[in-house]
Amino acid sequence: MYTTFELQEMIEKAISEIEYPPHPNNLYEPIAYIMNLGGKRLRPALVLIAADLFNGSIEEAMPAALAIETFHNFTLIHDDIMDNAPLRRGKQTVHEKWGTNNAILSGDVMMVESNKQLTKVKLDVLKPVLDTFNATAQGVCEGQQLDMEFEVRHDVGIEEYIDMIRLKTAVLVGGAMKIGAIVGGATTEQADLIYDFGENLGIAFQLQDDILDVYGDPEKFGKQIGGDIIANKKTYLLLKLQELAHRDDLNALAEHALNTTALPDKIDNITALYDEYSVKELATEQMRHYLDKAFQALDNIKVPETQKKELIALANALMHRES
Amino acid sequence: MYTTFELQEMIEKAISEIEYPPHPNNLYEPIAYIMNLGGKRLRPALVLIAADLFNGSIEEAMPAALAIETFHNFTLIHDDIMDNAPLRRGKQTVHEKWGTNNAILSGDVMMVESNKQLTKVKLDVLKPVLDTFNATAQGVCEGQQLDMEFEVRHDVGIEEYIDMIRLKTAVLVGGAMKIGAIVGGATTEQADLIYDFGENLGIAFQLQDDILDVYGDPEKFGKQIGGDIIANKKTYLLLKLQELAHRDDLNALAEHALNTTALPDKIDNITALYDEYSVKELATEQMRHYLDKAFQALDNIKVPETQKKELIALANALMHRES
Repeated sequence: MYTTFELQEMIEKAISEIEYPPHPNNLYEPIAYIMNLGGKRLRPALVLIAADLFNGSIEEAMPAALAIETFHNFTLIHDDIMDNAPLRRGKQTVHEKWGTNNAILSGDVMMVESNKQLTKVKLDVLKPVLDTFNATAQGVCEGQQLDMEFEVRHDVGIEEYIDMIRLKTAVLVGGAMKIGAIVGGATTEQADLIYDFGENLGIAFQLQDDILDVYGDPEKFGKQIGGDIIANKKTYLLLKLQELAHRDDLNALAEHALNTTALPDKIDNITALYDEYSVKELATEQMRHYLDKAFQALDNIKVPETQKKELIALANALMHRES
Repeated sequence: MYTTFELQEMIEKAISEIEYPPHPNNLYEPIAYIMNLGGKRLRPALVLIAADLFNGSIEEAMPAALAIETFHNFTLIHDDIMDNAPLRRGKQTVHEKWGTNNAILSGDVMMVESNKQLTKVKLDVLKPVLDTFNATAQGVCEGQQLDMEFEVRHDVGIEEYIDMIRLKTAVLVGGAMKIGAIVGGATTEQADLIYDFGENLGIAFQLQDDILDVYGDPEKFGKQIGGDIIANKKTYLLLKLQELAHRDDLNALAEHALNTTALPDKIDNITALYDEYSVKELATEQMRHYLDKAFQALDNIKVPETQKKELIALANALMHRES
């Protein structure tokens, strides 16, 4: 068994060793650029942790881990175009640096790269690995589509929201772990359980993100507190408030949403409404609900409890993170 | 053995029967839209013709044919964004109808769809089919990148141009046929020969396109004659002229290229230069060179000559087409 840290180090090394074709330079340079912007390498680490959980070979699982990280970064390039985002991890986004057309195309070829990495898994698991990957990739696209549609809709419900974050964020966490488990030799039943663990962990993770954006420690959060509030982003907190608030408070909320100048006031006013309706506590409750589901699935996985320790520690660390 | 027409009919039927998920509607509707805009279904037909050539099952090859057509249409959606094209086959392009963000994402999910279709091939050929598909898809992306770069470059040579059209157009023709051959049970050697046939046919096809754009019959061509001339598109004809023309004629050409108002004059003047340097004949010679290479590869394929008839007829029809 490896620690998460050890696996992350191995991933970092493997990523730095990927050689992209030299030509056409403008097609491949953006790939090396975004792949080396850093990040926690959480998704590929989960591929390897899952393989390790079933005593699989890390070496054999590495191409799948790289496929997942490449796919994830492909979605970041295309999402940043759609969101018109100037920065990613504090650096220029690919479309800002190379132009939108180039960013579309480099993203496309990263999708091909992911598939090429995946074909390196052992032949006897190739089909289930591909099936899992394709279902995952399709879900992520659906999630991004729903997220874009939510931006212009005014009737988004909590259930729909959970389904959107499930697709956009959680299926990739689940899919990464399922692929790792398959490569590691898990049975279909066990691989499905680790998928459930990952998907529920992913939902909890995103809910935690929504909470941190408002209630995080400004010293530790890394991004501006209240960023979602400023952008009127439909988070769990906002949707829950809209569900619960009395008419007067709803009207006040609508007023505050229009405020585009006095932003500290906007954050204070809307946070006060969240506090009034205990929205943070309700969101935390939901988060715990999905975390419990994740741990239930993990409980049912038939490997010695000692082998689960690293995964349990990681899940708890993610839920108690401050950034 | 089936005729090309019979195979095209089967493909048309199979495409009309594909069921995309109903939700999110805006993600999947553009896919059904572009897949049903029509077209010759040449690439998927070549998958099936190649499978048929090696006495493979058409039914087993159909998912691969649909994968190739889906991939091709995905590239059309993304290329149309990059080219800012308002129309595709006389209808609104996907990004015009649904917006650019939606078009990026629907294209992305089509790439996933292609991969899903491919996993339906028999398990014993899955790996070589995927390897061929991934190499093909990567080549197509590289070709599109080079094509975009050529637009703003002034030093594109003939050899580079041929390599660009090989990547952008011909590898998909070759790849489609190789995949069909593999699914149809061909050996690696035979599959490589059909790839060579397809790739060279694809290059000849694109050169023919360049010629038709200037010298096609306006009644039959379907598009405006001289479209490439108006757009100053770097075709084989233009690059050959630039290679051969004396200084005076090069200066005249540069003058004409700046003409954006008197377009019929622009077409006449540049066509006159093409005539002066026999550029049409030189392009036709190049086209025949690649067609010969294609037929040489076909010659070496070890199936009864009678089984090659349909393919030879199709290749000749493509080279004598008027639109």
